[in-house]
Amino acid sequence: MNIIEIIEKKKHNNKLSTEEIIFVVENYLNGKIADYQMSALLMAIWFNGMDNNEIYDLTISMAKSGKIIDLSSISEKKVDKHSTGGVGDKTSLILLPMVASLGVPVPKISGRGLGHTGGTIDKLESITGFQTDLTIENFIKNVKKIKASIISANINLAPADKHIYSLRDVTGTIDSIPLIASSIMSKKIAGGADAFVLNITVGRGAFIKNISNAILLAETMVDIGRKNQKDTYVVISSMNQPLGFAVGNSLEVQEVISLLNNKGPDDLKEICLFIGAYMLIAGNVTRNVEDGINMLKEVLENGKALNKFKQIVKSQNGDIAQIDKPDLLPKSKYQGEIYSEQKGFIDKVDALLIGDASRILGAGREAKDDAIDLSAGIVLKKKIGQKVNPKDILATLHYNDEKKYFLAKDIVKNAFHVIDKKPKKEPLLLSYIDEHGLKKLQ
Amino acid sequence: MNIIEIIEKKKHNNKLSTEEIIFVVENYLNGKIADYQMSALLMAIWFNGMDNNEIYDLTISMAKSGKIIDLSSISEKKVDKHSTGGVGDKTSLILLPMVASLGVPVPKISGRGLGHTGGTIDKLESITGFQTDLTIENFIKNVKKIKASIISANINLAPADKHIYSLRDVTGTIDSIPLIASSIMSKKIAGGADAFVLNITVGRGAFIKNISNAILLAETMVDIGRKNQKDTYVVISSMNQPLGFAVGNSLEVQEVISLLNNKGPDDLKEICLFIGAYMLIAGNVTRNVEDGINMLKEVLENGKALNKFKQIVKSQNGDIAQIDKPDLLPKSKYQGEIYSEQKGFIDKVDALLIGDASRILGAGREAKDDAIDLSAGIVLKKKIGQKVNPKDILATLHYNDEKKYFLAKDIVKNAFHVIDKKPKKEPLLLSYIDEHGLKKLQ
Repeated sequence: MNIIEIIEKKKHNNKLSTEEIIFVVENYLNGKIADYQMSALLMAIWFNGMDNNEIYDLTISMAKSGKIIDLSSISEKKVDKHSTGGVGDKTSLILLPMVASLGVPVPKISGRGLGHTGGTIDKLESITGFQTDLTIENFIKNVKKIKASIISANINLAPADKHIYSLRDVTGTIDSIPLIASSIMSKKIAGGADAFVLNITVGRGAFIKNISNAILLAETMVDIGRKNQKDTYVVISSMNQPLGFAVGNSLEVQEVISLLNNKGPDDLKEICLFIGAYMLIAGNVTRNVEDGINMLKEVLENGKALNKFKQIVKSQNGDIAQIDKPDLLPKSKYQGEIYSEQKGFIDKVDALLIGDASRILGAGREAKDDAIDLSAGIVLKKKIGQKVNPKDILATLHYNDEKKYFLAKDIVKNAFHVIDKKPKKEPLLLSYIDEHGLKKLQ
Repeated sequence: MNIIEIIEKKKHNNKLSTEEIIFVVENYLNGKIADYQMSALLMAIWFNGMDNNEIYDLTISMAKSGKIIDLSSISEKKVDKHSTGGVGDKTSLILLPMVASLGVPVPKISGRGLGHTGGTIDKLESITGFQTDLTIENFIKNVKKIKASIISANINLAPADKHIYSLRDVTGTIDSIPLIASSIMSKKIAGGADAFVLNITVGRGAFIKNISNAILLAETMVDIGRKNQKDTYVVISSMNQPLGFAVGNSLEVQEVISLLNNKGPDDLKEICLFIGAYMLIAGNVTRNVEDGINMLKEVLENGKALNKFKQIVKSQNGDIAQIDKPDLLPKSKYQGEIYSEQKGFIDKVDALLIGDASRILGAGREAKDDAIDLSAGIVLKKKIGQKVNPKDILATLHYNDEKKYFLAKDIVKNAFHVIDKKPKKEPLLLSYIDEHGLKKLQ
């Protein structure tokens, strides 16, 4: 077996065998296959794709390239949740306590990542003292005790995926369904949970731009999960405008606390209830989405979800005073407001532009080692469908650096589009896949 | 401009601009574009191709990446010849003296290369003392004085092509018409001649396997040449069985001398007359192929071609006694014969297998720095169409290492295929492109 033959094979649209895929992953990781050969193979995969067996083999090889976390000492069915991300996506922070408060163990491994804001781990670090570099032993102990814990993906989880992803990032080979699916699922499988609920976002602020690709990715990931005896559910949702109002690390934690106090935002609540219901189904707590939603509403109303969040924060050395008084969370020195110049209805709040502006303000990273400004970000005041008048505030920018504000403010302004007539409501939930297959909601 | 955007552009089948191609070539050569990005781009080019403008831009950028040899001090029209190569292809060694003896300057820059035998340079080094590392000044002086000289491509000719070719070699991106055409033509253009006669070989022993790809490559190269104001002619010929009888460095030089003495082999003579006629046309010595062929036949008959070969050898410090007495050329210690076991007619002499066996015997290189055994090789005794009886000799293997002989002999045996009925004659010359366009001969 040699890499050139394998590249030729894929280039000519032939299926790679299990042995060939194992060979590639092992030898890329140990340095015997060069980056330039791997990138040529990745580009050939971009063009010719992979069938479900190849994707499965790639996923498992990458998952096995490092440690697979053994969660077998936790007796209940463990449910992991993943989102392909988007602007203002803070669902993990809400779902973890909601679902755990109903008895489902949620062992969550999260990343920092590049993007419009930090990753879930960065957001949590807005809370003073919050530790995310727990040992696996303490992570498991927490899940046993309070049903939820969250650690950073710094552990050597699917290292082959990490290497391959870095290469894809600089060689134009990110947007390949087989490569995306295997990348996500290799990390999920290495994480050791028994079932997965995956949220695929689609639209301007997501990296999947159209629903047909989202469905293809969803079906591919469900196939990988099931071949690996993991119950796998997918919720596909829209990411044309940011989710909720807050974009930025500390700002999003404040919005999480608001929702756990059973306040808005409505769109964020809607999606958390739906994904959460599937997490309850995956965790064998209910067999029915509607029941699940009702159970989740109850823990928002009776404070159990908020209380669970405080337990999580406390168990990871975070300052729970900040949960009770979100005003104590990091705050930016300056706030600047963006005003409407028109009268009418908001037709568009471009998630991509809001995301870019948020990163420019300092909330996200452009390069792997960039520092993050936890207090920077954007709070939207208007979203699609809302009425505006001239001088109404569209958004507030939170910043610590005037130069960054000047770069970001016009981008935020341009993200808003106003029309005369009230636009049709844009649906948030688009499709899902459960044990009965794909169901389109719209 | 950045390389990731350029990769994305080509990946999505968009045309690259002149500026983008210059950017890629320059920045790859200076190390700002990484190998892994270049290989991803090359694979995208493999899939989506390039249009004639892109190919032209790539060719010129690579040609200009190093020195372009200035041959303007040679007043006549200078003609360069190139072959895509094959097993037993010693046409350059014959054409150089034949055409030069009729007054056309032929400044030839050749390589060593990997393959079944050494390159033209290695073959010439079978002649004791023959120097191929002349300075450009001496090279030009020789061409002025005796109309022909041959130097090794060690000079910094089209260095970007050299780098890109090395990368293609290990990333499965060799077999791309735009990349092959631009690679060959960048070196030709950097070589500084005014006109090119290109021989494209097709078949088992060539690296172009089918005629339609050969025609596509031919038309692509003619387009590049003409866009660069260079008269460009192409002859497409078959390479299913080896050309001539001899395969190996010293063995081929002996066959060259035989032909320059106006002896066989017939197939080698046929192709040299045809390609040579186009070199005379390119050099403005005649306007007609038939006239050209007759002129070339004459210099073979009257000894002028042989004499010119001796002049070339002498001018480069080679031992001309070996031209008069080819027995003085390097000889292998051992010879082993391969016999026929069947009665019938030779239907196939697989050039690829003969080439592999030749390399195994030591005549060619597998890796860039491998030493070559100048005396090793194979002399065919039977070719397609010839009658054989059991115990007839099919081929003689020349070797210095018994172990290599044992590896090679069965391969040579398997290269021959015998059938009962005399097979149809396989045509050698397939097509050509002159100023009137493509003409199919078969």
